[in-house]
Amino acid sequence: MTSAGPIRLGVDIGGTKIACAVVDSGGQVLARERRPTPRTGGDDVLAELLALIAQLRRRHHVDGIGIGAPGVIDGGTGRVVSASAVLPGWAGTEVGAKVAAGTGLPVAVDNDVRAMALGEARHGAGAGIDRVLFASVGTGVGGALVFRGALQRGSHGTAGEIAHLLVPGQAPIACGCGRRDHLEAMASGPAIAAGYALAAGIEPVDLPQVVARWRAGDAVAGRAVGDAAELLGRALAGLAGAVDVDALVVGGGVAQIGPDFLDPLREAFAASVIEPLRGIPVLAAALGTDAPLIGAAELVEPGNRPAA
Amino acid sequence: MTSAGPIRLGVDIGGTKIACAVVDSGGQVLARERRPTPRTGGDDVLAELLALIAQLRRRHHVDGIGIGAPGVIDGGTGRVVSASAVLPGWAGTEVGAKVAAGTGLPVAVDNDVRAMALGEARHGAGAGIDRVLFASVGTGVGGALVFRGALQRGSHGTAGEIAHLLVPGQAPIACGCGRRDHLEAMASGPAIAAGYALAAGIEPVDLPQVVARWRAGDAVAGRAVGDAAELLGRALAGLAGAVDVDALVVGGGVAQIGPDFLDPLREAFAASVIEPLRGIPVLAAALGTDAPLIGAAELVEPGNRPAA
Repeated sequence: MTSAGPIRLGVDIGGTKIACAVVDSGGQVLARERRPTPRTGGDDVLAELLALIAQLRRRHHVDGIGIGAPGVIDGGTGRVVSASAVLPGWAGTEVGAKVAAGTGLPVAVDNDVRAMALGEARHGAGAGIDRVLFASVGTGVGGALVFRGALQRGSHGTAGEIAHLLVPGQAPIACGCGRRDHLEAMASGPAIAAGYALAAGIEPVDLPQVVARWRAGDAVAGRAVGDAAELLGRALAGLAGAVDVDALVVGGGVAQIGPDFLDPLREAFAASVIEPLRGIPVLAAALGTDAPLIGAAELVEPGNRPAA
Repeated sequence: MTSAGPIRLGVDIGGTKIACAVVDSGGQVLARERRPTPRTGGDDVLAELLALIAQLRRRHHVDGIGIGAPGVIDGGTGRVVSASAVLPGWAGTEVGAKVAAGTGLPVAVDNDVRAMALGEARHGAGAGIDRVLFASVGTGVGGALVFRGALQRGSHGTAGEIAHLLVPGQAPIACGCGRRDHLEAMASGPAIAAGYALAAGIEPVDLPQVVARWRAGDAVAGRAVGDAAELLGRALAGLAGAVDVDALVVGGGVAQIGPDFLDPLREAFAASVIEPLRGIPVLAAALGTDAPLIGAAELVEPGNRPAA
């Protein structure tokens, strides 16, 4: 069943693929397409994206376009302020202006973790919940706050940024900001993998290898994953109480490990959080790879468009 | 100069005194009185408070009464849900209902740290600043969030609660919630004093003694205070980024140590906070003991009254 409201394209630009979906106002995906991400600079990425959009518009009416993209995004202009190595030549790309010029449609751009959070909060694990803290645990650690279905941005666009929460422990890698006492340096996928390699006294491995070793009975691997889950639970409990939310939704690649990861996180959260929040749910993200597409489509909503 | 708006009484109920001020709508204190707090139960405290209110009303017109009180307050009913030993027989006291019945005026009641935060954010160190994170460092560690002059409450009334942020270190005492990995267990006045006594290998002392020894050249005492200040800066940096605020205002008894305490806190905050917030001010509370009175008076504002 299709909702009667506007139809939008939700775009998820990643390091390996550009995904695009036609989404109705009820968060239903009506069609989806994807193409490999060019590794040859921002302009090539946009050219491929515009071709993908044109392809979908041949068969679907579209009222607006929302884009979730990696890096720090200036929501007002839709420009990529800075980006890591995930997409070569991505920093500085005028995503919003060029897609608007190339399509003649309203365009909103935001960070991909925020798009995912908005999708999960409005139509996924957090649907119907008033104040949602979303945590993405993957190559990095990111987050967002969605209150009554609206992304919170704060004064500097950092609202929901959980990577830099202070944590105890000896971090095996540096946080994206360079420090070693921040959550991301202890609990991201690469941090877990590096911590395991250090503890086991072996050469670096990646997270899937750590998980495979754990499933095969390697207790050191299990402890590396479990310690990160517990630390996330303890750190997010402090934040959840200070922000005062109704639910924690956890997504991202590391969270896809499943209950073996989420259960110790939940347990640590409940043991550490302030009493009035002890019963709030800690939920696994429910929309999978559709979350950033559905959320990106929602970015075009006036209440969710970043301020200029 | 008196503002033209309503005149309110702001009340600050503490363990040793009940203070009461006549406050105009511009946050100016027109008159103030205080009496010792009876140590004989909540009803006696309220009887003394009603006498104090009657005394001030003989000389001043009053439109409403705002009360800052210790403990966990149910803002909807003005009832003390729970309280520490600071006031014997305080838990369960129906502050809001009884003061309203005894005066015939609109009454709002909230926690004393929140009243202080509201006073500082609207008329003190945070005046004119959009999003303020207030931290009170004293016998306990507490906080509040004031956005555009309005207290944030969240879903469970815990918004701004910084005591239970996760921190590294070996806490010398337990947090109010019982854990030892929370900010309050490491950075409150009693935590600093206990940490000093442990490090110095001496019998317990109180915070003023620690500060006196520090001023007299005791490096261990200086380190105990400096370590707490640094930890506060690091922990609040993570929270400030995740909430995304425009300023941090620090008050409470420990903060009254002055620049020797605030400077290392500021330095640690700036070194740890996410880049977009690196320049935000870390301000000392400016209103002293008037802050909870001025803030309490503001509690009667419709936007600041706790929801029932």
